[in-house]
Amino acid sequence: MDPQHRPGGDAERSIMRTALHAAARGPRGANPLVGAVLADAAGRILHVGHHRGAGTVHAEVDVLQRAASAGTDLRGTTMYVTLEPCNHWGRTGPCAEAIVEAGVPRVVFGAPDRTSAAAGGAATLRAAGLEVRSGVLAEEAERLNDRWGETMRAQRPFVTLKVAQTLDARIAAADGTSQWITSASAREHGHDLRARADAVLVGTGTVLADDPRLTARTGDGAAVLRQPLRAAMGLRAVPAGAAIRGSDGRFRHLVTHDPHAALAELYDAGVRHVLIEGGATVAAGFLRAGLVDEISLYQAPLLLGAGRPAFAEQGIGTLADASRWRLDPTGGGPVQQLGPDLWIHLRPAPAD
Amino acid sequence: MDPQHRPGGDAERSIMRTALHAAARGPRGANPLVGAVLADAAGRILHVGHHRGAGTVHAEVDVLQRAASAGTDLRGTTMYVTLEPCNHWGRTGPCAEAIVEAGVPRVVFGAPDRTSAAAGGAATLRAAGLEVRSGVLAEEAERLNDRWGETMRAQRPFVTLKVAQTLDARIAAADGTSQWITSASAREHGHDLRARADAVLVGTGTVLADDPRLTARTGDGAAVLRQPLRAAMGLRAVPAGAAIRGSDGRFRHLVTHDPHAALAELYDAGVRHVLIEGGATVAAGFLRAGLVDEISLYQAPLLLGAGRPAFAEQGIGTLADASRWRLDPTGGGPVQQLGPDLWIHLRPAPAD
Repeated sequence: MDPQHRPGGDAERSIMRTALHAAARGPRGANPLVGAVLADAAGRILHVGHHRGAGTVHAEVDVLQRAASAGTDLRGTTMYVTLEPCNHWGRTGPCAEAIVEAGVPRVVFGAPDRTSAAAGGAATLRAAGLEVRSGVLAEEAERLNDRWGETMRAQRPFVTLKVAQTLDARIAAADGTSQWITSASAREHGHDLRARADAVLVGTGTVLADDPRLTARTGDGAAVLRQPLRAAMGLRAVPAGAAIRGSDGRFRHLVTHDPHAALAELYDAGVRHVLIEGGATVAAGFLRAGLVDEISLYQAPLLLGAGRPAFAEQGIGTLADASRWRLDPTGGGPVQQLGPDLWIHLRPAPAD
Repeated sequence: MDPQHRPGGDAERSIMRTALHAAARGPRGANPLVGAVLADAAGRILHVGHHRGAGTVHAEVDVLQRAASAGTDLRGTTMYVTLEPCNHWGRTGPCAEAIVEAGVPRVVFGAPDRTSAAAGGAATLRAAGLEVRSGVLAEEAERLNDRWGETMRAQRPFVTLKVAQTLDARIAAADGTSQWITSASAREHGHDLRARADAVLVGTGTVLADDPRLTARTGDGAAVLRQPLRAAMGLRAVPAGAAIRGSDGRFRHLVTHDPHAALAELYDAGVRHVLIEGGATVAAGFLRAGLVDEISLYQAPLLLGAGRPAFAEQGIGTLADASRWRLDPTGGGPVQQLGPDLWIHLRPAPAD
C-alpha cells in the first residue's frame, strides 16, 4: 500500500472516534467496550462494528463478518480498533488471527491490551507482515474502560448494582409489598442484564424477605439457556426450600459480610461480571468499599413516603463526602424510557 | 373562500396535531398549554406558534406576529388553535379580536374555553363574519390540560412541586449540609421555574432550617424583575430576620397546616400558579390531598445513604395505594440532562 494514499493523522483520529462511538453502544460487564471500523485506503468508512458483551463476537470479528456479508474487497483496507486486537482463545477465538486470515493489510488501534492472557496481538499481526499503528486516541479508549481495567488489575469481577425503586427511593411499601414497583418493560431490561452476567448476588436478608428465584427469563417468562450463578451473601442460613437454590447446582452461599471476600470467592469460581440485586445493606457494603463499577437504576413514577429504602447507611455524614456518580452514555444510556419507567445508567465519578 | 379548496377532515386533524405538538413545548402553570398553526387554503402550514407561559403572548398572537414578520398574506388562511381563542383582557389582550383585526378569515379550534372570564371567543369571531369550526381533536386538547382545568373549576392555583434530591431521595446529608446537591445548570432551571410562578411556598420548618431567600435569580445571581410572592406555611413563627421576608412586601405567612386553606388564601391574593419548594412535610401534605398538579424533579448523581428525605410519610401502607405519576413530555420534558444532573417532569397518573 502506498503510504501517500493513507489518511492523515486527523483523518485517522476521526475514524477512530467513530470506532469509539460504536464501542459505547455495547454493554459493560466481563469484557471491555470495544469498537472497530474498516476503512479503505482513502479513509472512507466501509463497515462499523462493536462488541455486544461476553459470549458474543469481538468488535473486529463483527466488522469482518459485515465485510464478508457485503462481499467487500479487503485489499488496501485498514482495520481501526479502539483496543489492541486480542491474541488468545477466550470465550471466542483470537482476533489477531482472524484479521490476518481475512487479509486486512493494516491495523490501527487505540489502547494496548494490558491483560496478560490477551496481550500480544500487535506482535502477532506484525509477525504476519501487517502494518500496525498504535496509540490513536488511546487515552479516550482507556478512559472508556477505566473501571474495567481496575477490576482486571485487582483480579476481581466487574460489579453492576441493579436497583428498582420509586421516585422516593423505596424498594417496598410499608407492608413489604414490592411486586411490581417497575413495569414489565423495565423488568425485561433487568432480565437481559441478568442474562449477560456471570453471577447474580443478593443478601441473605433479601432471600428471607422476598425468596427471589433470580433466574434470567425472557419476556414471556421462559428461562434463558445460559443462567448466571446465583449467590446469597451473609451469615444467615439459606433455607433448604429457598427458590434461589434452584435445582441446577448453580447456587452458592457466600458466608461473609466482606464484599472483597465475596468477590474473591466468585472470581475463583470463574465469575467476571456480578450483578448485585440488593438489598440495601449488601449494596451499601459494596458502595462503601468502592467496589461498584456501574449502577443500573430503574425508577418507577411512584411515591410511597414510607417503606424499605433502596440504599442503606454508608457512613456518609456530610455532603462533601457523598458517593459521586456520573451519567453513563454507554449501553443505550444514560437514560431510557421503559414503558412508564426510567432506566438511568451511572458510573463512578472520577475522584477530584 | 371556496369550500372545495378547504383541507379535508384528516388534513385538518393533521394540522391540529402539529398545533398540539407545539402546545406541548410550553410550560405548565397559571395558563393552559396552547398551540396554534396558520395554514393556507390548500392546508400548507405557514407558521406555528405556542404559548410560553403567563405574561407572554398567547399562541394565536405568537403565530400572527410570525406572519407579520414574514409579511405573509393572510387572505384565504385558516388559524388552527388547540383551545378556543380567548375573549378577554387578562395579562394580555383578547385573541379573538387580534385574529379579526389581522384579517384571518377562518378559525378551527379544538377544545372550548370553559373559563367564565375568557369564554365567548368563537361567538366574537362569528359576529365579525369569520368562519369558525370547533371540536377538532378536542379530546386531546382537553387531556393536555386536564389538571389545569381541574384547578380552574376548583378555583385554586395550579401547583408545581419542585424537588432537588440525590439518587436516594435525600435533600440534605446527615449533618444538614445541602448546598449544593444539584449543579448550577439545574439550579438555573429551577430559577426559571420560580420566575414563571406567582408564588413560591415552603414550610416554616424549611425557613428555620435553611433560611432560603426564595427570590428568582438569573444565572449570574441577579434578581429577575418580576418576583413571585414568597409564602411560608405552618404554625411556627417566621423570625423577623428571616431571608424569606425580604424588603419588597412580597412575603406572606400562611398560618395553617391545611393545603386547601393555604391555596385558598393564595388564590384570593391573585396567585394562579404556586411552586412548592419543600420541605418533605409540606410536600407530603399536598401530595396526600391530591393537590400536586406537576412534579419538577432535579436528581443529582449522588448517594448519601442517610440524611433528610425529600418525601415524608403520606399514609401509604401498601404498594397498591402508591401515589402514581407519569412522565410528562411537555415543557421540554419528560427528561433533560442538566449538566451532571437529570430533570424529570411528571404529572399525576389518571385514576384507574
